[in-house]
Amino acid sequence: MNISEENFIVNLGIHIRQLREKKGLSQQGLADDCGITKSQISRIEVATINTTVKTLVKIANALDVEPKELLDFPLK
Amino acid sequence: MNISEENFIVNLGIHIRQLREKKGLSQQGLADDCGITKSQISRIEVATINTTVKTLVKIANALDVEPKELLDFPLK
Repeated sequence: MNISEENFIVNLGIHIRQLREKKGLSQQGLADDCGITKSQISRIEVATINTTVKTLVKIANALDVEPKELLDFPLK
Repeated sequence: MNISEENFIVNLGIHIRQLREKKGLSQQGLADDCGITKSQISRIEVATINTTVKTLVKIANALDVEPKELLDFPLK
């Protein structure tokens, strides 16, 4: 398999934004629920940062999904 | 949901080690296939580092699995 890392984090950001909006949360709301900054959420969603597994777990907890679901999206 | 971040990365490390061994790769072999150091693979497997999404993608590519499969394990 040869998935592009850059493409993957772009798609991850889009997927996290979709899950956040589905839950009716603002970036600030999600940030508050995760205990991270709104700026960090924003940068994850637009893929300007390469986030860590622990931050994924925080986001998954706040979105009421399992961490693996955050990585479950079709690659475009 | 309230998954412990620390517990999650411990289980992730165990899961990556299992997938690596299933593929018959040493830590050095996996490191070479990923373009990262053996020390980094070792530290991910024993959960002394909180790795990034891009590194997960490199490992998934080398193990011939999708990135989401790296996070697909029962939480203990």
